[in-house]
Amino acid sequence: MAGFRDNIRKVVPYTPGEQPKRVDNLIKLNTNENPYPPSPKVEEMMKQVTGWRLYPDPAASKLVEALASYHGLNKDQVFVGVGSDDVLAMAFMTFFNSDKPILFPDITYSFYDVWADLFRIPYVQKPLDENFRIVADDYKCENGGIIFPNPNAPTGVYQSLDFIEEILQANPDAIVIIDEAYIDFGGQSALPLLEKYENLLVVQTYSKSRSLAGIRIGYAMGSAELIKALNDVKYSFNSYTMNQPSIAIGAAVLEDEDYFKEVTGKIVSTREWFKEEMKKLGFSFEDSKSNFLFVTHETVKAKDIFEAAKANQIYVRYFAKPRIDNYLRITIGTDEEMKTFLNFVKEFIKM
Amino acid sequence: MAGFRDNIRKVVPYTPGEQPKRVDNLIKLNTNENPYPPSPKVEEMMKQVTGWRLYPDPAASKLVEALASYHGLNKDQVFVGVGSDDVLAMAFMTFFNSDKPILFPDITYSFYDVWADLFRIPYVQKPLDENFRIVADDYKCENGGIIFPNPNAPTGVYQSLDFIEEILQANPDAIVIIDEAYIDFGGQSALPLLEKYENLLVVQTYSKSRSLAGIRIGYAMGSAELIKALNDVKYSFNSYTMNQPSIAIGAAVLEDEDYFKEVTGKIVSTREWFKEEMKKLGFSFEDSKSNFLFVTHETVKAKDIFEAAKANQIYVRYFAKPRIDNYLRITIGTDEEMKTFLNFVKEFIKM
Repeated sequence: MAGFRDNIRKVVPYTPGEQPKRVDNLIKLNTNENPYPPSPKVEEMMKQVTGWRLYPDPAASKLVEALASYHGLNKDQVFVGVGSDDVLAMAFMTFFNSDKPILFPDITYSFYDVWADLFRIPYVQKPLDENFRIVADDYKCENGGIIFPNPNAPTGVYQSLDFIEEILQANPDAIVIIDEAYIDFGGQSALPLLEKYENLLVVQTYSKSRSLAGIRIGYAMGSAELIKALNDVKYSFNSYTMNQPSIAIGAAVLEDEDYFKEVTGKIVSTREWFKEEMKKLGFSFEDSKSNFLFVTHETVKAKDIFEAAKANQIYVRYFAKPRIDNYLRITIGTDEEMKTFLNFVKEFIKM
Repeated sequence: MAGFRDNIRKVVPYTPGEQPKRVDNLIKLNTNENPYPPSPKVEEMMKQVTGWRLYPDPAASKLVEALASYHGLNKDQVFVGVGSDDVLAMAFMTFFNSDKPILFPDITYSFYDVWADLFRIPYVQKPLDENFRIVADDYKCENGGIIFPNPNAPTGVYQSLDFIEEILQANPDAIVIIDEAYIDFGGQSALPLLEKYENLLVVQTYSKSRSLAGIRIGYAMGSAELIKALNDVKYSFNSYTMNQPSIAIGAAVLEDEDYFKEVTGKIVSTREWFKEEMKKLGFSFEDSKSNFLFVTHETVKAKDIFEAAKANQIYVRYFAKPRIDNYLRITIGTDEEMKTFLNFVKEFIKM
């Protein structure tokens, strides 16, 4: 066997949620996308994108400045990437660069251990408590960095800023990354803590609340020092990550705050109503402040519901993993979609 | 000083060519962009891009299939990324994964040593000969992989397929990457060698010949085994790298072969005429089969020309590096742009 095979990096890649081919009447509640279209500014802006033949601005300044202004930060405090996965991958490479293990929960975004393995970063997964809450004391040992989502995924559980601050206070020597992919559905961002903690990095995305999973924009916010370190690594990897449409559209949609509030408000309303309906059907769950609900049923197995739903053209997410293999993660769609799901479940659990 | 700083990865990033703010009458011959706009299919396609709220197909199948069909390959032989820099960064991470040094020329694309440093890959740079040619015998020692551009950058020098095959024959145990960013301007692609060499990876880009530096598309072609290894690493880094516009537009422009041939043909004609004019002015250069010329002048210093040109709103590229610090890399623009440059130089060297 040719020796070149020995040089190939072996990895177990992350498995993204299934993206079924577009089918009429398919209800897609499996990848936490937004059921509503993005701001109409996208269509307007698409007609104006120019400069195709030229390299985009490597600093994506137009987008970075729009985000900085939106969040009340300086432009040297914002880093942009090709979705928050790109931003988090760069952050792992940049900041989790010691021999000490990094810490994250046992039940959390399933990309964290994939990145740690890819970059050969040692890690320890700290178990959530029986109510799927992060235990602050678990994060008070020596470590090479800390990351968790808030709200957590796939649980939807939100931890208060006091909790985040407790972790930060205990870890002045580690970089703490709060992955806020779902923060716009009712939680409070850790951004105000940036003023006090220079080791805090807050990551957000356009994929959920801004209905723009298809454009691939994520961003990190932190001290100018951390953002410069991220940019140095990015410029050592790929100078021009953001293409012309993503820079133009990413900046333009931030102007449409009314639309953003309307859409996130609708999803929160649907979620709160859906929680009540699910309780009536015998489902239980920890309270969610995200655009999904992580549920288990008192008698019917999650996997059976998952498979039957799929056979009925309703996609939800099921993880065959320890502790959560009797749970389903259900994205909050439109009222209509959730009613269809509820009707299906009502029939199915009676059988 | 807080200990978190010790955990930050220190790198010396790649410096991209200057992207000046758009100014009227500026002549930009510094980043090897195409002077002509992309196929009109781009504008058409932009109006049809949909699915913003959804994650793109993580496999970018529409684009991958279009490229496979265009190049006469199977779809499992094509890997796509966010420009060829993204593809090459992934390839370094995937394939240059031994303790043996990888090999590349001393004068070449200046990102190679940046990636090697980022991923802590040992490397040895083999000097080009006095005519800026790669010396095949230098690549017949034990190594952890080989990469070079063909035509080489910033020299523009093209090596024949016989030369590529000599390297491949000597290295059955190493993965050999041929970076063909500039292959469409007169060289012959190494693609036909894929049938014989399962350790060959050929990388191309939309940024030069297809006038789409702004969309960020690069791609690698090789055996299904190598492409799977690349995809495994990509899925461990970022599942969804290609956004909806890049998938749609990248596939559509391949249909416009007439336009592609017209544009690349015009650039080749301009280049050949420009070579003659430059010789008349006392410049010398190795023959270029790329969309740039790498020149030195018999009496006037390259750096002086570079700075004076910039003051006259003409941007070319100057590298303050050993062996090439008296050379300029001049992108081939339109006839009009090259005439303006020639007129400027004619005046300047008289002074």
